[in-house]
Amino acid sequence: MELKNKEMMNTTNDTICAISTPHGSGGIAVARVSGPDAIQITDKIWKGKTLATVASHTAHLGEVLDSKGDILDQAVATVFKSPSSYTSEDTVEISVHGSRWIQRELINSLINAGARLAGRGEFTSRAFAAGRFDLAEAEAVADLIASSSRAAHRIAINQMRGSISRRLDTLRQSLIELASLLELELDFSEEDVEFASRERLLNLASETKAEIERLVGSFNTGAAIKDGIPVAIIGKTNAGKSSLLNALIGDDRAIVSDIHGTTRDIVEDTIEVGDYLVRFQDTAGLRNTDDAIERIGIDRSYKAANSARIIIHVIDSTDNSPSSEKLGDIDSERIITVFNKSDLTTVEIPQDAISISAKTGAGLDTLRSTLLAKIDRFADRENGEVMLTNARHAQALSLAAKSISDFITALEAQIPTDLAAQLLRETLHHLSTVTGTITTPDILQSIFTNFCIGK
Amino acid sequence: MELKNKEMMNTTNDTICAISTPHGSGGIAVARVSGPDAIQITDKIWKGKTLATVASHTAHLGEVLDSKGDILDQAVATVFKSPSSYTSEDTVEISVHGSRWIQRELINSLINAGARLAGRGEFTSRAFAAGRFDLAEAEAVADLIASSSRAAHRIAINQMRGSISRRLDTLRQSLIELASLLELELDFSEEDVEFASRERLLNLASETKAEIERLVGSFNTGAAIKDGIPVAIIGKTNAGKSSLLNALIGDDRAIVSDIHGTTRDIVEDTIEVGDYLVRFQDTAGLRNTDDAIERIGIDRSYKAANSARIIIHVIDSTDNSPSSEKLGDIDSERIITVFNKSDLTTVEIPQDAISISAKTGAGLDTLRSTLLAKIDRFADRENGEVMLTNARHAQALSLAAKSISDFITALEAQIPTDLAAQLLRETLHHLSTVTGTITTPDILQSIFTNFCIGK
Repeated sequence: MELKNKEMMNTTNDTICAISTPHGSGGIAVARVSGPDAIQITDKIWKGKTLATVASHTAHLGEVLDSKGDILDQAVATVFKSPSSYTSEDTVEISVHGSRWIQRELINSLINAGARLAGRGEFTSRAFAAGRFDLAEAEAVADLIASSSRAAHRIAINQMRGSISRRLDTLRQSLIELASLLELELDFSEEDVEFASRERLLNLASETKAEIERLVGSFNTGAAIKDGIPVAIIGKTNAGKSSLLNALIGDDRAIVSDIHGTTRDIVEDTIEVGDYLVRFQDTAGLRNTDDAIERIGIDRSYKAANSARIIIHVIDSTDNSPSSEKLGDIDSERIITVFNKSDLTTVEIPQDAISISAKTGAGLDTLRSTLLAKIDRFADRENGEVMLTNARHAQALSLAAKSISDFITALEAQIPTDLAAQLLRETLHHLSTVTGTITTPDILQSIFTNFCIGK
Repeated sequence: MELKNKEMMNTTNDTICAISTPHGSGGIAVARVSGPDAIQITDKIWKGKTLATVASHTAHLGEVLDSKGDILDQAVATVFKSPSSYTSEDTVEISVHGSRWIQRELINSLINAGARLAGRGEFTSRAFAAGRFDLAEAEAVADLIASSSRAAHRIAINQMRGSISRRLDTLRQSLIELASLLELELDFSEEDVEFASRERLLNLASETKAEIERLVGSFNTGAAIKDGIPVAIIGKTNAGKSSLLNALIGDDRAIVSDIHGTTRDIVEDTIEVGDYLVRFQDTAGLRNTDDAIERIGIDRSYKAANSARIIIHVIDSTDNSPSSEKLGDIDSERIITVFNKSDLTTVEIPQDAISISAKTGAGLDTLRSTLLAKIDRFADRENGEVMLTNARHAQALSLAAKSISDFITALEAQIPTDLAAQLLRETLHHLSTVTGTITTPDILQSIFTNFCIGK
């Protein structure tokens, strides 16, 4: 079921409109009108130079009318003529004063003049339908808008500019080469001639499999960078974990989003550390206890530590028996040990530990830079490589990895070439769903409903 | 101290930038750069056609760079060359994807390239400094952005388009004519010749005074339309006042702003009724009581009724002694009497009362249209007339009214002409502060700090 993008979309013959700027009031707001009648419809509510007569990519001062024909606002209309627009359709962007009232009335007026309110992501889905984007690039637009750190932003913008698409295209080329080699063999199978060297086939298939698996593996890191790298703060009760969390957040509060893990009794806070968004998890204090409820909290702390990328282990410098804590079998590379309450004591601490005072702020800069170095190290594993951040892509590529793995097994087992070729086609199919060369209306709908209206 | 606008502003020689669209993330966001180096600064962070070479009012697709020189986003830059821009300065509007990250980095990048973050209202204050607006028009921009009903919007946009300014200009012309007539008299005073007919002078002064006083008087209605027309819901306890408020609000909840009058124990809710924003006030129930605390609540209800434009008096249809309630000496034109709980009884009600059921919704449409008719009637008093909505203007015109009133008294008392002329100059001065022909840095600052950044 390989369809051209255009054929998947059946609503591109009408003209849509929406406010594309963020919700709320502000200095200016921009409405976007796109579709075959975008310019004519805007002209109906426009007092100024007739937009149908102006050149593409020009901006014009005028006045927009409300649905009763009264002057709604002074406005600037910028005309983008097909195909040189975001959607490839005729598009008008109308910039008005950003009052909620004006925004609402402008959309009412445009609808009254013949436009339809755009659905979520409909401008981008039209850009996809017109072939301006493939699906992975279109999805990156939503990620780009949502990204909240330099690292997440960089991944999203690279994806929007085609990084994943180019990588998958290379993989597709390899698979097509494999398929053609195989088919050649198939055509001459009665003559029992092996045109393609099995060894060459196997090498090519293994390389392709390795790259697909690397991509699937990158999702772990990619998703952490996109959503915030989980860093657990663990330690004994009263070691000062919550104070440390508050101290780390400090003045960054303003840009912090609070997620209270009510079901897990783990308090999360995200802040930027260097280029990364970090999701700090304050956990229940660790101690030996017979209290069943408290035990559950502590078990959760261990689980948080296990699922976190990095663990900040907080030890109370004034505690005389710090060694009684066990962190289980966690890779020491992932652990940062800090001795808190340095303002109260001058105890000797291990060389690789950091002395801090959550209270006075002493040592926090060292902690931040150590944390950043550890994050950099784990993010750097994928340095310069394409990273997946989208669960849909990871799932599709997992299926592709499975198919190509089966293909290799089949080749090695010398099963009939036509069965092997089928596995290769499956692999190709899964790859193609990522970029949308193969897609279904269901997939498209589930993707674009994650967009905001106006994009 | 009459200074040219330009001389009041001393910071227009640098280039400012800000995000002009509402806060938050969305499809697109627009940064505005304005000032002598706007185009050169944008070119520093711009990959695409050199903006210094393009024509005014043209839009260009390209990429913006972050402060590290990496690609931040795909963007559209629209260039407006001096003097054909909002500020009259060279201006670039950069439209990017509306992620918070991109918005922040774009501003960082522009600042890094030599722009300065704009202060509140600085784009508009530059437009004022360049003489594109007078002060009353500039203030209307903020009102326009804040307006939340058709009626408030219409007043703001008319003011922005010069309605008040033109009216005040007419008044200024009258005053200048008066002054020149008086000065002619002054020049020849030693000869004791009365060139100007005192009667003509008095007529002109009285007409001017009447119009100034009408404008001052219109502030009462203008402010109510701008901020929401206060409508008090009063009545006995358990008459169903709160149910009525909830029923009236109904599905409009989504666009309702809740103001809990904690100090007054009056719950307010604003909703749109027709073209108006209405501020419903649910009050304490009225009844004869010896309870001192309850008495205070009831006194407040009477006060709310007195300060409200319209009173909805709710009577319980199932109550056998409704006549015991007194509303004091409130103009009956302002009262709408409703008999609630029509679902429970079929009692006869007075002809001008409305039978409703807050529970079933019966009669609410009639109530709404009656309410709207009453609002229309009181708003119509100013029909087609310029209305003040700004307290600063009302204050300045009150002072002007006082001066011209003193002038008339002086003329009638035949006091020396030069003293009368001084009163006329005072009147002119107060008028001039409204449009900003006369202004001070303090006035300007207090006005523009009410703006948002980016406007």
